[in-house]
Amino acid sequence: MINVRCNVGAILLDGKKMAQDIRKELKSRVQSLADERGRRPGLAVLMAGDDPASKIYVRNKIKACEDLNIYSELHALPHDVPQADMLILIRELNARDNIDGIMVQLPLPPHLPAAEVTETINPDKDVDGLHPLTMGKLLLGQETFLPCTPMGILEILRRSDTRISGKEAVIIGRSSIVGKPLALLLLKEDATVTICHSKTENISGVARRADILVVAAGRPEMVTEDFVKEGAVVIDVGINRVGGTIVGDVNFREAGKKASAITPVPGGVGPLTIAMLMRNTVRSAEMRLARQAVIMHPNPGGG
Amino acid sequence: MINVRCNVGAILLDGKKMAQDIRKELKSRVQSLADERGRRPGLAVLMAGDDPASKIYVRNKIKACEDLNIYSELHALPHDVPQADMLILIRELNARDNIDGIMVQLPLPPHLPAAEVTETINPDKDVDGLHPLTMGKLLLGQETFLPCTPMGILEILRRSDTRISGKEAVIIGRSSIVGKPLALLLLKEDATVTICHSKTENISGVARRADILVVAAGRPEMVTEDFVKEGAVVIDVGINRVGGTIVGDVNFREAGKKASAITPVPGGVGPLTIAMLMRNTVRSAEMRLARQAVIMHPNPGGG
Repeated sequence: MINVRCNVGAILLDGKKMAQDIRKELKSRVQSLADERGRRPGLAVLMAGDDPASKIYVRNKIKACEDLNIYSELHALPHDVPQADMLILIRELNARDNIDGIMVQLPLPPHLPAAEVTETINPDKDVDGLHPLTMGKLLLGQETFLPCTPMGILEILRRSDTRISGKEAVIIGRSSIVGKPLALLLLKEDATVTICHSKTENISGVARRADILVVAAGRPEMVTEDFVKEGAVVIDVGINRVGGTIVGDVNFREAGKKASAITPVPGGVGPLTIAMLMRNTVRSAEMRLARQAVIMHPNPGGG
Repeated sequence: MINVRCNVGAILLDGKKMAQDIRKELKSRVQSLADERGRRPGLAVLMAGDDPASKIYVRNKIKACEDLNIYSELHALPHDVPQADMLILIRELNARDNIDGIMVQLPLPPHLPAAEVTETINPDKDVDGLHPLTMGKLLLGQETFLPCTPMGILEILRRSDTRISGKEAVIIGRSSIVGKPLALLLLKEDATVTICHSKTENISGVARRADILVVAAGRPEMVTEDFVKEGAVVIDVGINRVGGTIVGDVNFREAGKKASAITPVPGGVGPLTIAMLMRNTVRSAEMRLARQAVIMHPNPGGG
């Protein structure tokens, strides 16, 4: 059982437990690759500078790789790494056979343009799903890697049997990493999707229309009781450090009174984001190794 | 004056007149290019087969080029043109110095995969704005060509002084050519954006929330009085042939009773779509010629 009723009335959507289940599935896929193709998936994580939050995220990703027996490389670059050096490193990783995924931890120091850095990653290794070509294919409904946080949110909805088709989904926040790609994913699942943001008039009224309310605004506990329709499913993407503790964008106690189900922070979306990064990396390795097998044995039945 | 009150009460948003104004602006830019850089912009239009509607659209685009003194090439390919031939032609056009824009008229015959054909176009010449890289940059908020119909709709809203920021925009239809990219454009203009579609429950109720209602559903006159909030601006993207005449997705007479402003069909969005294709082509030529000027005179002040 992944759903336990929490002390505020709503069902608690336990992202940690869901991520564990996904890791179990992935572990066997990693094992199959090692057994049948003789190679583990490989992920390269790049980081520039020593932002404390980024360091924690990166450490969690490397740890997740170790748990799954995925090969990983951490490239911790100095804060003032020249752009040219970073791009050369990415191109080397693009060419390396044992690397299936490349991810650059954001935010980057101001002298490094995120767009140019991301675009240098080979789209076939873009397991974070942030390359413009990846985003464009998502918009066009073509097969591609999906960005990890939106995909993790979809996974929570699926694993909690939340009906999406025909329902009203409201997303608070229009970032390129969460809000906009999530809108496309929910649209593909036949939700009626609304995106609102800091300029939205009567934002609590708009949020109150939601059967599924996703909050990725980066504002501590901005979503109060007033934002939540009775019975809504509430997904909190926020991670805010307030006075030494981590809180989400949702006031959990207040929203939990009205929601039918709600994610906690921490332990909600976060673990799923990392699990999706792992899944994209495993999938990338599977696709790459399947292609290599075809090249080595182009006509297996032809004797 | 572009706004004339029509006989149903609403202001008529005259796309034909707006397109004329844009053409006038473009004509002088084309003239400047010819005078200062010695070359006109060039557009290649590709079409496969002889779909009657496509033929009309293509003819209108070529005619628009002639009006503006833009060089144009029509490549009318047979219905059964091999995919390889089409891709070779696109690559030739990618390499040609006198071609600034390449557009492929959709829909293509079933044996030609639209995705692969579109992706073969050099993104620097993607004046139709349908390449996945172009779409991805749009999602990421990076500078890029914008798809013509969504940009045409934005132009109508701007030229009619419709306030977008903070307002509720509802888009009916989630196509990759109109609905989804338009949602991103309106979001960038600070609208609260909802996309609905055939699976939306209570679609007229959702539409009635709109301050700006855009209909791109491909269903003749589906939007009736019941869909329109008093005072809404209604943009009709539909072009449907019904019993020998062209009608939009909006019942003009009914919606016009409640709207404050409304586009006619024909003569609404259509002329703007073509005007935007022309503007993208001129812009592409300006950028290309500016780059060439820099290469030829890398240090103009350095003697």
